[in-house]
Formats: sequence, C-alpha cells, structure tokens
Amino acid sequence: MKQLIIASTSTLHSGQYLDYLLDTLKLHFKNIEDIVFVPYARPSGITHDEYTKKAAKAFAKIGITVKGLHEFKNPVEAITNAKGIFTGGGNTFVLVNALYKFKLINPLKAAVNNGIPYLGTSAGSNICGLTMCTTNDMPIVYPPSFKTLSFVPFNINPHYLDPNPSSKHMGETRETRIKEFHKFNTQPVIGLREGSWLEVKGQSIQLKGELNARVFEHGSDPYEIETDTFLNELN
Amino acid sequence: MKQLIIASTSTLHSGQYLDYLLDTLKLHFKNIEDIVFVPYARPSGITHDEYTKKAAKAFAKIGITVKGLHEFKNPVEAITNAKGIFTGGGNTFVLVNALYKFKLINPLKAAVNNGIPYLGTSAGSNICGLTMCTTNDMPIVYPPSFKTLSFVPFNINPHYLDPNPSSKHMGETRETRIKEFHKFNTQPVIGLREGSWLEVKGQSIQLKGELNARVFEHGSDPYEIETDTFLNELN
Repeated sequence: MKQLIIASTSTLHSGQYLDYLLDTLKLHFKNIEDIVFVPYARPSGITHDEYTKKAAKAFAKIGITVKGLHEFKNPVEAITNAKGIFTGGGNTFVLVNALYKFKLINPLKAAVNNGIPYLGTSAGSNICGLTMCTTNDMPIVYPPSFKTLSFVPFNINPHYLDPNPSSKHMGETRETRIKEFHKFNTQPVIGLREGSWLEVKGQSIQLKGELNARVFEHGSDPYEIETDTFLNELN
Repeated sequence: MKQLIIASTSTLHSGQYLDYLLDTLKLHFKNIEDIVFVPYARPSGITHDEYTKKAAKAFAKIGITVKGLHEFKNPVEAITNAKGIFTGGGNTFVLVNALYKFKLINPLKAAVNNGIPYLGTSAGSNICGLTMCTTNDMPIVYPPSFKTLSFVPFNINPHYLDPNPSSKHMGETRETRIKEFHKFNTQPVIGLREGSWLEVKGQSIQLKGELNARVFEHGSDPYEIETDTFLNELN
C-alpha cells in the first residue's frame, strides 16, 4: 500500500526544520530505524553533505537515522533497498535533473508504489505529481523532462500563496500562473499552503494540517477544501 | 548597429499598457511605420489576436501600426522583413517553446544583430539574455532548450523584487533564487526593477528609467547600479 506525506514546506515561519511534522512522521515511519534522504534539490545551493546533516538532525529527534543518497555507491540500489525515503526541498529543476541523471525515476516509483513510506517537502512534494510544471522555482538547470513520479493523479503547487491585494508589483499572482498552466494542461492542481500536507494511504488521499487548500480544475473556477477532505476522486 | 529596449515590464502599477515607455519608443522606432509583434508569450493565456490588439492600441498612440507574427503565413519571412520588432511579456516557457517550434531563434538573432530596432518587455526581455534560466515564470510547457537570443552577454531577471522583510512566507526570495542560479551557472544577472530598462546601441548597454538595478556576478556579492550606468564591460 502506498504511504506518502506530501508536505507544502519543511519549516514553518515560527519553527525549526520539520518540527511541525515530527509527530506525524513518528507514525509514518513507525518501526523504521533508518531512511534514505534524497538531497539533490540543494536549497540555496548547499552541498549534499550539509543538507543530509540538517535532515539527520531533525530525524534524530524521533530516533531515526538518515543516510544521504549521495553516500551510496549505487543510488538505484539504495532506493530499491530503502526502508523509508525522504526527499527534501530546494530547487525542483536541480532535483528532477539529478533524478533523471542517476536513473532514479523508475526505482523511486517502484519503491513507493510497493509501500515504502515516502516523505516529500516542497520540491520533494512537487515531484509526487504528474509533472513539475507547477513548481515555483527558477529554471536554473535544464532537466531532460518535466514529467515526475505521478504518485497522485494531479499536480502539486507547494508554498501556495494567496494574492496580496496591497501589492503594486505587476508580476503574476500564483492563481494567475496556475490558470495559465490550465491553458496548456488539463490535470488538476492542488495549491498547498505552508503547514498543509497530503496523506496518501493506498488509494486514499487526504488533506492534513490546519489550513484549507485551493483546488484548480481545468475549465472550472478554483475552490477551497477544508482540512481532512479526501481527494480520492480528483484526477 | 544593434538597437534594443529591454524593459522589465510593459505596465507600471499606476499606468496603461506601455504608457511610461511611449516617448522612448517614439525615438526608438523613429521613421518606422509598422512593426511586427511577437504575441507568443500569451499573458494569462489570452489569444494571439487579443494580445496583438492590445499592443496595436498602445502603438497607435505614436502612429505606428502593429501586425501580429501569427497573422503571417511565413513567420520566418515576417521577421526577416520586419522594420521593427516587439516581443511582449507573458510566460517565458510558452514564448521560448514557440520560438523554437517556428524556427525563429536564428531569424530573430539575424534581424536584430543587423540593426532592426527591437523592444522586449518582461518575457520578451528575458529572451534577450544568454538563457531564460532567470525567468520568474511557471514552467507550464517544456521548451526544447533554455538557450535564448544572447543580445546581451548576461542574463535578465525582469520584475526584480526586493525581499519583503515582513513576509512570513518560506518560499525563496528573488535574491536567493539568483544566488542558487550562480551555483550552477557563471554569467552575470541583471535584476531590472519595474520601470527600468536597458538601452542597447551597438556595443553600448545603458540602464534607463528612474530606479537602480541590481547586478549579480558569479562569486561576488550583488550590488546596485544607478540609472544611466553603462554595462558595456559586464560579461
């Protein structure tokens, strides 16, 4: 049975890395002693080692050991043998580029579809959708494809941000961007606000956290869903 | 001699489409009666016809007729024969995808390098740099390459936005994004604030408008330049 936590962000404004999720993660990774961390998204360009240390420090609080995927000689084998997987945030283009480069797309799909518990935050969540086309990140490298892991039958927009009515900036709002996406693509998009996550258990997909999420379906007006709503029918 | 206006935005918060640039454009397109408009970036997904009408309405104020590139049977020929070219803003991925699809990259380079006056706003300015890798847009389609027209020997970041110190949002600031870009790329980036533009005349590149711009060079701290500064040495 598929088991995923697909979180908008790793860190709340007021908190430490992963803190708001630790109780959830204790259950999610129950009876698992060590997980593999995918550090490829490199937030602010930090090294794989630095990033893995940061993840390890947070998981140590719930008694779980973290090893960076870059530390394994054979990353495909490491994913295939992993007991749990966490893909951290950063730049989605950099992440997806690395996943293709190291031929990890299919091994990741196989592992997670076979029931290995997965946690994604930000870029690590964006890749759980059909494509990375609703990332907020800057395209600083050119990946071989925008297709991603398709663990859910729609796209994710992490760090979803409501329009700021007092802004004088003429750049597009997030809602405008997602509406533009729907001029060229038909799959739904879930805008996950910071502090929200999707909990996937087999065929069930449920919104968690304190906030509402915003759903964009092709050809309809966007709408809000409350926490605990199931999204099983959305595709 | 190359002649370009590379503008951060088409529209200021308080103004009408292109209004703040019209005096400049009157000189830039002096003695030119008609220009070709490249509508491919499709802001908010509007049609090529709708977008061309919007551009035509603004240019009518300075006595210039606008024809949309999509109205020509042979777009390559249209660019080759154009007396002036304007590429409007919208989504840079959609724009660049169309430029490659219609094999317009080299014809555009040839026309502009041969002295045909060019105006770009937003996405139409981003493509004047070496790559589109410093766009702010959502990657809603997958273009065959991120390489762009290289009219200036650096990258452009239009709609440059200073960090908002009061924000509680955990998404990256623009400065953080451009610094991430420099972990993977070495060319300089000019952050053009709304209301600023670069004026290119042959080998000369000058910042225009009322505001400073922010320059990001690989391996150095970013710095501000004042309006009227020449950027001829930057590469």
